[in-house]
Amino acid sequence: MPVVDVHTHMYPPVYMDLLRARDKVPYVKSFPDDPAAGDRLVILPAEDTTSTSRGRPIGAEYYDVKEKLAFMDRHHIDVSVISLANPWLDWLPSDEAAETARKVNDDVERMCAEHEGRLFGFGTLPLSAPAEQVVEEIDRLSKLPHHRGIVMGTSGLGSGLDDPALDTIYAALEKHGQLVFLHPHYGLPTSVYGDRASDYGHVLPLALGFPLETTIAVARMLLSGVWDRFPKLNVLIAHSGGTLPFLAGRIESCIAHDAHLKKEGKLGKRRDVWDVLKNNIYLDAVIYADVGLKAAIDASGADRLMFGTDHPFFPPLEEDEGEWLSVKLNSQAVRSTFGDDPKNAAAIMGGNAMRVLRLSS
Amino acid sequence: MPVVDVHTHMYPPVYMDLLRARDKVPYVKSFPDDPAAGDRLVILPAEDTTSTSRGRPIGAEYYDVKEKLAFMDRHHIDVSVISLANPWLDWLPSDEAAETARKVNDDVERMCAEHEGRLFGFGTLPLSAPAEQVVEEIDRLSKLPHHRGIVMGTSGLGSGLDDPALDTIYAALEKHGQLVFLHPHYGLPTSVYGDRASDYGHVLPLALGFPLETTIAVARMLLSGVWDRFPKLNVLIAHSGGTLPFLAGRIESCIAHDAHLKKEGKLGKRRDVWDVLKNNIYLDAVIYADVGLKAAIDASGADRLMFGTDHPFFPPLEEDEGEWLSVKLNSQAVRSTFGDDPKNAAAIMGGNAMRVLRLSS
Repeated sequence: MPVVDVHTHMYPPVYMDLLRARDKVPYVKSFPDDPAAGDRLVILPAEDTTSTSRGRPIGAEYYDVKEKLAFMDRHHIDVSVISLANPWLDWLPSDEAAETARKVNDDVERMCAEHEGRLFGFGTLPLSAPAEQVVEEIDRLSKLPHHRGIVMGTSGLGSGLDDPALDTIYAALEKHGQLVFLHPHYGLPTSVYGDRASDYGHVLPLALGFPLETTIAVARMLLSGVWDRFPKLNVLIAHSGGTLPFLAGRIESCIAHDAHLKKEGKLGKRRDVWDVLKNNIYLDAVIYADVGLKAAIDASGADRLMFGTDHPFFPPLEEDEGEWLSVKLNSQAVRSTFGDDPKNAAAIMGGNAMRVLRLSS
Repeated sequence: MPVVDVHTHMYPPVYMDLLRARDKVPYVKSFPDDPAAGDRLVILPAEDTTSTSRGRPIGAEYYDVKEKLAFMDRHHIDVSVISLANPWLDWLPSDEAAETARKVNDDVERMCAEHEGRLFGFGTLPLSAPAEQVVEEIDRLSKLPHHRGIVMGTSGLGSGLDDPALDTIYAALEKHGQLVFLHPHYGLPTSVYGDRASDYGHVLPLALGFPLETTIAVARMLLSGVWDRFPKLNVLIAHSGGTLPFLAGRIESCIAHDAHLKKEGKLGKRRDVWDVLKNNIYLDAVIYADVGLKAAIDASGADRLMFGTDHPFFPPLEEDEGEWLSVKLNSQAVRSTFGDDPKNAAAIMGGNAMRVLRLSS
């Protein structure tokens, strides 16, 4: 059974050109006078400081498909389903978005075609464009031979995934059976981490901000009835659902005890979180420990989890490390969970992705 | 084996008098011209609106010990370890805090003594008072015969639980073997829930804000080295740890991949989250589903989970309901997890609390 990585990012060359041409977030900055400094990627307003450590290093592993393939070979990954890394096209002016999306998606399609059988892609939507242009791109993506869904952040059209204006887009995605890979970017307001957060490097926003942002976004989709209106809309949630598997019981209990929802007649007519977890939601296995992985499996089923690496993020701190620690932690979690059940382990490492994303065709 | 409820709140009469005498948050408002309206409790700034639905109803179940005992009898709970409900004494002027804490703690001690064997208490600290007065109250609480630890929010002295100024207090708690029951109150900034949050009643702040606040607070304690400096400090975390069991792997991975922490020499010399989960942290079983409960047990061990109800919060929406749904969901989760293992179920329902909190003496 092949190993498939469903959570692996790239900035294809077309997108890199966009970032290099900019000087505000998001952008890539070069230092021609100091080649040793390397290029820096700045994707969050908080990273856009005037210090020399502005942003984070960005190298060829972000945009060169050869680096992706070398990483796959080193980690025995047969197939990768690449997605544009955050912040996608959320930031584009409305009148540039549709054309840029086509270029970026075509660039991904080209890379996949050049490495037949090894690469597939999730497309990116021009969410700042008028809705009909977004729908057009969904129609177009569904015909690209190597695309298998779309990647999307939690902002939607700018006010979250519970925005009724997204219904046209959800309808188009459902109609074409296009999976949504839901991924965080915006985190939480930095005030929640307190006055000493910088002592802890990037740990609090990365370890907690990202999964909490994701959980809030999914809960808003659930509460606004997205899956009641679009019962066949499928979503692959990054980082094993944020914290959704763990908090699902509390979410349902809070709903069942909410006087406002009862008064509005919203109890009893809805699909609950367990139903959605088992019928609409897929979870990647990017969770770094068997405790979380088991909870994700308990919530959605071993047939709905899919291995991922989050490459090229979380590189090893030691340069000569062969296998990346971040990859090892995730594959170890699968092995530890299914020590005596190689069939389910193989399903999570690749079989589920092959089936759900139709990768063998 | 007795059933013990370690997560159950009261506002003892002394505290109710304080709330009734106030007209800003936190306070209790009566409507003498409209007795049917009942009293209203306002504990969060966001609840302090001018609408008639200001705050939430507050009845005798919040302050009358007879109501607590009736609830226990109805749910076959043998022993309750009561704690002051949020926002505790966080809001008190510095010069009033110590005396008020003594009065509140003595009021709880009196109630417990009047119902020998059925009630124990977690004390409340005067955190706005000078540190020596806080330590004095810890000394005093450790001699009160029915007290078994203290309840504390995530604010600490005002800037979080990673505040080095808390070290004197952590040292006193560790010295006396006083368990800290860590409980959320402040939630997250409301902006994170988006423009349509009010459509969903209180679900998002209660279901997500509370556990996320708790998780951030515990991660800050871990990262600031609280458990490295106080290796015997024990903390009982509300709501099964917020989301800590699920995110523990991601927290450790983000630490291991953080260039800043490495540069500062902070990797390798620290106790990791798994060590702390299994040696310093206890978790209540207020999680409303077996998926989350199993993850909590996987993270900390079946000997570290303790049943709780969160009474008097989350009352049933139907008045004539006998057993409260919120209680039933939590006890069902224990039964469902340990269907074939009554020993571990009994430990979580009461045995662990009897042992850890020394309730039989």
